[in-house]
Amino acid sequence: MPDAANPSPQDGPACGRFEAGRHVLPVRVYYEDTDYSGSVYHASYLRFLERGRTEFLRAASVSQRDLHARGGLAFVVRRMSLDFLKPAHMDDVLAVATVPRDIRGASMTLAQEICRGEDLLLSAEVLVAAVRQGRAVRIPEVLRAALRPGVPHP
Amino acid sequence: MPDAANPSPQDGPACGRFEAGRHVLPVRVYYEDTDYSGSVYHASYLRFLERGRTEFLRAASVSQRDLHARGGLAFVVRRMSLDFLKPAHMDDVLAVATVPRDIRGASMTLAQEICRGEDLLLSAEVLVAAVRQGRAVRIPEVLRAALRPGVPHP
Amino acid sequence: MPDAANPSPQDGPACGRFEAGRHVLPVRVYYEDTDYSGSVYHASYLRFLERGRTEFLRAASVSQRDLHARGGLAFVVRRMSLDFLKPAHMDDVLAVATVPRDIRGASMTLAQEICRGEDLLLSAEVLVAAVRQGRAVRIPEVLRAALRPGVPHP
Amino acid sequence: MPDAANPSPQDGPACGRFEAGRHVLPVRVYYEDTDYSGSVYHASYLRFLERGRTEFLRAASVSQRDLHARGGLAFVVRRMSLDFLKPAHMDDVLAVATVPRDIRGASMTLAQEICRGEDLLLSAEVLVAAVRQGRAVRIPEVLRAALRPGVPHP
Repeated sequence: MPDAANPSPQDGPACGRFEAGRHVLPVRVYYEDTDYSGSVYHASYLRFLERGRTEFLRAASVSQRDLHARGGLAFVVRRMSLDFLKPAHMDDVLAVATVPRDIRGASMTLAQEICRGEDLLLSAEVLVAAVRQGRAVRIPEVLRAALRPGVPHP
Repeated sequence: MPDAANPSPQDGPACGRFEAGRHVLPVRVYYEDTDYSGSVYHASYLRFLERGRTEFLRAASVSQRDLHARGGLAFVVRRMSLDFLKPAHMDDVLAVATVPRDIRGASMTLAQEICRGEDLLLSAEVLVAAVRQGRAVRIPEVLRAALRPGVPHP
Repeated sequence: MPDAANPSPQDGPACGRFEAGRHVLPVRVYYEDTDYSGSVYHASYLRFLERGRTEFLRAASVSQRDLHARGGLAFVVRRMSLDFLKPAHMDDVLAVATVPRDIRGASMTLAQEICRGEDLLLSAEVLVAAVRQGRAVRIPEVLRAALRPGVPHP
Repeated sequence: MPDAANPSPQDGPACGRFEAGRHVLPVRVYYEDTDYSGSVYHASYLRFLERGRTEFLRAASVSQRDLHARGGLAFVVRRMSLDFLKPAHMDDVLAVATVPRDIRGASMTLAQEICRGEDLLLSAEVLVAAVRQGRAVRIPEVLRAALRPGVPHP
C-alpha cells in the first residue's frame, strides 16, 4: 500500500508510464462504465481520458490537488473533439495514451487515444486551459517545461 | 404517477417541449453532476446532452427501448465536438436544446446547446449512427420523417 | 424556462410534490443509469435518492447551494441501508419518495423508497448529518421546523 | 499491454492482491469521483466497492463476463449497509478490502472496507445473489469452492 498521506508522483495503482514520448495509462472496464447496450457508455470514455490527463500531469510531477492548493491553479476542458471508432466491453483492459501537441500561454492541446491491444477505439483532441478562481492564467514555467512535447521522461 | 408499464411519449417528468423548431429539455444540476472544482464535471454535460437526444426522440414518438426491442435498433454516438463556454453550478436549472441538422441513410447530425437562462454554456455537434447488433443500418422511413428538421411538432 | 439566475424553490423541472406527508419526485431512467446487465446500475439508485433528498429540502425552502453559501452548512450521508427489491429499466419513470423519520440535534434519519407504479423497487434508510467545514453542527431551528414530520406542506 | 482478448486473472492494472485472507484493491480518486463539497461523492464509494468485488471474483478465477457468457450467470446486489466514517479526497490512493463472510445456496455476504493508509473511511456489508435471466440460481460448486473464506489464494 503506498503512503497515501504523502504520495509521490510514482505512487499508486494507475500511474501509467511513458512509451515513445506518449503517456500510457491502463484502465479496466467495470460495470459502472457500461450501459444497457452491452458496451461502454459513451461519456465513460471522457472519464478515462481525464484519468489519463491527470496521471500524465502527475507523472510530470504535477498533482492536481497541489496545483489547486497552491493558489488554486486548475486545468479545465475548453474544447473536445471525439471520434468513437469501436466499442469497449465489460472487463476489457484499455490503454489511454496522452501526448501534448501544443502548449500556449494559458492553454494546451493534448492528443489522446484509447486502445484495446492493437485496436484503436477512440481518438480525441482536447484543449485545456489553466484557470485560477475561474480566470485564465498563464501556465507556470516549471510546469510548461515539464510538459513540453519531446522532453524525455524517466 | 404515469403508467410506467405503458408510457406514452408525453408521460414522465422531463420530456421537454418544442420551441421554434428546437427540442428543449430542462435539467436540474445535482451533487452527482459536480466535481471538487465547485462546478459541473465536464463529462456530466454529455449525460445532459444524451437525455436531450433521448427526449427529442421520444417526443418524435420514438422510445429507445421500443427501438431496441424491435430488432435491436439503437443510436450510437460516432463523433462529437464540444465547446465548453461557461461553467454550470449546483442547483442550476439548465436547458438542453436539440435540433437535427442533417439526416442521412444510416446516421444523422444533431446540433445541441446547453443554456442557463440567456447564457450559452456549451455548444455541441453530435453525429449518431443507427445500428442493429453492432452494424450500421438504414434509419427507418417513419423515423426519418418524424425527425426531419422543420417538421412542425405538436 | 424558469429564471435560473434567481430560481425560487418551486422552479425547475423536477421538484416533485408532497403526497400524504411524503415528498415524491419523478425520475426518468436514461442510458447513463443502466449497465450491461440491461437494468439500472445499483449505484445509480443512490443518485436518484440524493435527488429526492435535495428536492425534498428545496420543497421545504432549503436550497443546498444557499446552505453552503451561508456559512457552508451541508448535509452529508453518514449511514445507509438499502434493499434492492426489483430492477428498474431503461426509459422507466420512477418515483422517489422521501419522508423524515427522526430529526435530532445535528442529524436526521430519512426513509426513502423508489417505486415504478405500484411496484416497490428499493427501500432505504438514510442518516444524514449537518456539517460546517467538516464538523458536525446543530441543524438550524428554522430548518428543523420546516422538516418536521407531519407538518403539512403546501 | 495485456492481451485484452484473452485476459488471464492476473492481467491488467488493478487486480489487487490477497493479504491475510482479504482481497485488497488499490483505487485512485479522480475528478469524476468528487463533488462540489470538495470530497468524494457518496455514491462513488459504491463504484469502488463494486470494483473490489469484481477483482475479488477475478482473482478467484471468475470473470464476470465469462459468467455472463456461460448461461448468463451474474451477481446482483440485494442488500447493502454502509457506514461513511471519514471523507476521501481528490488524488487519494484508497484500498478496497473484500472478504466473504457467508456463502449460501444462491447468495453470499461480503464484508468490505475502504481505507486510506491506516484510516478506515467506509465499512460495508453487501449481500449479492447469483441470478440467471433475472432468477435466483445456485452458485456453481467450483465457484463456491474458490470463494470459500479462509481458502488460501496464490
